[in-house]
Amino acid sequence: MITSHSNPKVKQVIQWQNKARERRSAGVFLAEGFKMFEEVPRECLQQVYVSEVALERIGRKPEIERKLNDVGYETVAGDVFGKMSDTQAPQGILCVVRQPVYCLEDLLKAESPLLLLLEDLQDPGNLGTIIRTGEAAGVTGVIMSSGTVDLFNPKTIRGTMGSVFRVPFLYVDSLPLTIGALRQRGIHTYAAHLEGEVFYDAFSFREPTAFLVGNEGRGLARETADQAERYLKIPMEGKVESLNAAVAASLLMYEAHRQRSAR
Amino acid sequence: MITSHSNPKVKQVIQWQNKARERRSAGVFLAEGFKMFEEVPRECLQQVYVSEVALERIGRKPEIERKLNDVGYETVAGDVFGKMSDTQAPQGILCVVRQPVYCLEDLLKAESPLLLLLEDLQDPGNLGTIIRTGEAAGVTGVIMSSGTVDLFNPKTIRGTMGSVFRVPFLYVDSLPLTIGALRQRGIHTYAAHLEGEVFYDAFSFREPTAFLVGNEGRGLARETADQAERYLKIPMEGKVESLNAAVAASLLMYEAHRQRSAR
Repeated sequence: MITSHSNPKVKQVIQWQNKARERRSAGVFLAEGFKMFEEVPRECLQQVYVSEVALERIGRKPEIERKLNDVGYETVAGDVFGKMSDTQAPQGILCVVRQPVYCLEDLLKAESPLLLLLEDLQDPGNLGTIIRTGEAAGVTGVIMSSGTVDLFNPKTIRGTMGSVFRVPFLYVDSLPLTIGALRQRGIHTYAAHLEGEVFYDAFSFREPTAFLVGNEGRGLARETADQAERYLKIPMEGKVESLNAAVAASLLMYEAHRQRSAR
Repeated sequence: MITSHSNPKVKQVIQWQNKARERRSAGVFLAEGFKMFEEVPRECLQQVYVSEVALERIGRKPEIERKLNDVGYETVAGDVFGKMSDTQAPQGILCVVRQPVYCLEDLLKAESPLLLLLEDLQDPGNLGTIIRTGEAAGVTGVIMSSGTVDLFNPKTIRGTMGSVFRVPFLYVDSLPLTIGALRQRGIHTYAAHLEGEVFYDAFSFREPTAFLVGNEGRGLARETADQAERYLKIPMEGKVESLNAAVAASLLMYEAHRQRSAR
């Protein structure tokens, strides 16, 4: 059992909690809680830490106990686990997970791809919510500019509620170039933009579709928006000037879902 | 100019930042930043604090300067302002605002009311996003159970982006009783519920409508959901078990907006 705060494994986990660079160079991220543990694909699990108290509770959850014995784990004293955890009330199970790596082809496999393109999103919670809603709405992939917050940020991972294991994603250096590549593949690109003149539900999204959503404060850069085939806008009553980025993305993805469901 | 951290006004503001009870007993809340200052109705502004640095910048914004001179303000030294502010990079303007008070009638004035009923929402950011999206989607009011997070929490206020001044709202002791009262007024109530069997876009929301959305983790309490006229569900692909509460509320409100817009 790990009982010392200065155990090198403990120090390593704390670094991974706090530093995107450290996560990137090791190619891992951290996922906490029983639900996340259940959802991690076995082949991606690298290490599992369980607190003493949690270990007792696990005895009553045979499926979790089985997976745990299968993959192996280390027990950690309660106060040390508290230091390793990113949450205020840790459930007592923490996984070190290999970062999945996708290529553009993985995101385009579907018969009629539905992509979300995010430029420089900064709020980790927003990004997590978008990945979660994306899976629910049936997106086939999420593409992010390199200036977007790290998807493997613990807060983002928590917000995805496990969808991070199922929605293919990609960081790209240049969104404008990526949009060009998507257009060549016959994917229609729509920029959510305040200057849009046509409401979002006036388009058909049954064809291969990509929605472009910009930074929370600034929206889309001009050179990115210019690459899109069309601008679209979401109607807003009152004095509202813009919507939360996760809300805007959700409305677009679910409008596509509504159109694509033969109901 | 206020230069001391122990100035009683500074201490009072810090209490209002941190304690819902203190805000409630004084009947005030705090709103920070230039945009918020511009949006506060004059008659609700009780005090305004401006940091030294911000004061210089304001000279270049004649409209803000005019309102500021009109309502009066106190200058605060930069380091003291930093203590008063809830944000990491304060813009340097902080307003003490009278809490608006509405009654049920205020929320029902519209020809065909569109209400959002929230049960025990806990995330301040979620609530702010919902109020903001609510204004954009044209809701006529938001009703919250008494167990819902304080709307005047600084993080919620920030999230509303000013919509808090324009969307009527109400805290009620019993949501089930309120739903009963709404039904008597001819308002159709729909509970967003995992046990719903009909998709949300199959109903007509042109008639007076209220959507019920539950707590982030637990959903709606049985006794609350039971009072609703109908259950509805939002379709979810993949392995997603539920949506973020703000996303679910946004999808419902915008579906009503879509139906109500004669486009």
